[in-house]
Amino acid sequence: MMRGLAFAAGLMLAGCASTQSAPQTAPKPPSADVIASQVGEKPTPTSPPAGQQWLYGSAEGAVASAQVYRALASYVRAVAISAAPHRQVVLAEGSTLAAPRFDDCGDKPLAAVFDADETLIWNLGAMRYFAEQHQDFDPAVWDQWEKTGTGKAIAMPGVIDAVKVMRGAGVTVIVNTNRTAANAKGSEDTLRAAGLGDFKHGETLFLMGDTPDGASKDGRRALIASRWCVIAMGGDQLGDFAQAFNARDLSVEGRKTLATSGPIADLWGHGWFLLSNPVYGPSIRGGFADIFPSDKQWEPK
Amino acid sequence: MMRGLAFAAGLMLAGCASTQSAPQTAPKPPSADVIASQVGEKPTPTSPPAGQQWLYGSAEGAVASAQVYRALASYVRAVAISAAPHRQVVLAEGSTLAAPRFDDCGDKPLAAVFDADETLIWNLGAMRYFAEQHQDFDPAVWDQWEKTGTGKAIAMPGVIDAVKVMRGAGVTVIVNTNRTAANAKGSEDTLRAAGLGDFKHGETLFLMGDTPDGASKDGRRALIASRWCVIAMGGDQLGDFAQAFNARDLSVEGRKTLATSGPIADLWGHGWFLLSNPVYGPSIRGGFADIFPSDKQWEPK
Repeated sequence: MMRGLAFAAGLMLAGCASTQSAPQTAPKPPSADVIASQVGEKPTPTSPPAGQQWLYGSAEGAVASAQVYRALASYVRAVAISAAPHRQVVLAEGSTLAAPRFDDCGDKPLAAVFDADETLIWNLGAMRYFAEQHQDFDPAVWDQWEKTGTGKAIAMPGVIDAVKVMRGAGVTVIVNTNRTAANAKGSEDTLRAAGLGDFKHGETLFLMGDTPDGASKDGRRALIASRWCVIAMGGDQLGDFAQAFNARDLSVEGRKTLATSGPIADLWGHGWFLLSNPVYGPSIRGGFADIFPSDKQWEPK
Repeated sequence: MMRGLAFAAGLMLAGCASTQSAPQTAPKPPSADVIASQVGEKPTPTSPPAGQQWLYGSAEGAVASAQVYRALASYVRAVAISAAPHRQVVLAEGSTLAAPRFDDCGDKPLAAVFDADETLIWNLGAMRYFAEQHQDFDPAVWDQWEKTGTGKAIAMPGVIDAVKVMRGAGVTVIVNTNRTAANAKGSEDTLRAAGLGDFKHGETLFLMGDTPDGASKDGRRALIASRWCVIAMGGDQLGDFAQAFNARDLSVEGRKTLATSGPIADLWGHGWFLLSNPVYGPSIRGGFADIFPSDKQWEPK
């Protein structure tokens, strides 16, 4: 990420330093102050990782979250008050991403389903602890975090307003997270302390262990959809929408194509809402050949 | 970012490994394959930086872009066909972020204004080159990129559809970028080759050097708003909306508060549209005390 930052600084410098055939109004190169204000500061050995700076610290990271939640709240309210028959946004059992089906809701009550970590809440306490300790993840520490992190996580920007809008429209907010069922009380307390209201394990909070399919959320989604009409889902990873996105045989490019083409593409922003999380998850994957198409290779002369 | 990835792997492991007082349906710990499918792969010395993996390679990064552009296109179309009098979304000259004013448009033609780099296009050729060379940014290389990168940058996900919708609604798409005026032809060609259509320097393409305020885009925004009714703006950095966000004396927290509270907060998703860019820019800034509020510190027992 230092490379990225240096790159950014350079982007600005490039624009400013280029003087050949400059127009009459070409500015002087900006001062170091101006450049710093445009590209930020060089990270220091005591800085959090750049991804955390963007996500947890920056105005841009906050705006990105708030922008999604405003759109989501508007969407949910519009669907809730619509007289049209409602349909699930959870994939019908047995249907596929290539040929998705969505069941009619009948008279089930309306709900919206969200992942918790880096979707509804930012895990500031645990993230800072790991980063300051220069420590890789430690399952025992995370287990402590689930149990005792109450008050040290915060609602992501825009979440509290969106939750208020949804509940005001008669839509129940439900959490489906891979936090463990063994620590249900800690997660209930953490969500409440973050200002999100009351969630109850097995009713509005579904955790790893509630169904026999482990880290897949499909079983819990099916359980929720058997009781509720799920009109919106929010998450930071595609597995928050359908486990099929995590199929082992999907290439980086194939996974991207699957998510952004065909009938599934129409769901983003219209029932499925993705929050940006460049810090961790299945999005962090791939070598140069996976990330950069070979026909876009370039080098200076 | 390796820390982030390891953290992610651990998040999954934590959920799966926790067995004390496990519910009856607790799953077996998932296989390494399942974990890999959830959290991705460990980066190798030959991997691009994690931020680039997320932004340029992942399904999540693509969806994040497409989701914003679908919302933006809907917004622009709705405003364009509305019978209500139009107003600029460019801050009126002399007004502030704390007390913004927006001028009436009169009968100016409608436009939407976008940054170029990491807003309309991904600079795949240059980004891959720098990363593969393990090279920090080089202004001379970037100058070459502006001149010769045509065909090696791509439209970001959702952009081409959004541009089509906007133009179909009679809204002119205008670019305001800190690429240099000296390389106008290269940038015109790059945008055209990415599928975005024709842009002409001084008419629908505004570059660093076009006005005397250097890397600030305020002067160019004022110039554009003197000719057009700007009903939407898109960018990946707050300076793409107002230079005041780049004020030197703003703290990390102060800048975030400025962007997400008061009257400005209502603009996100309603005239101002932010694209996620965790790779470079003024968002990449701050130490632990800036990124993590002190009252959220936590440690395991």
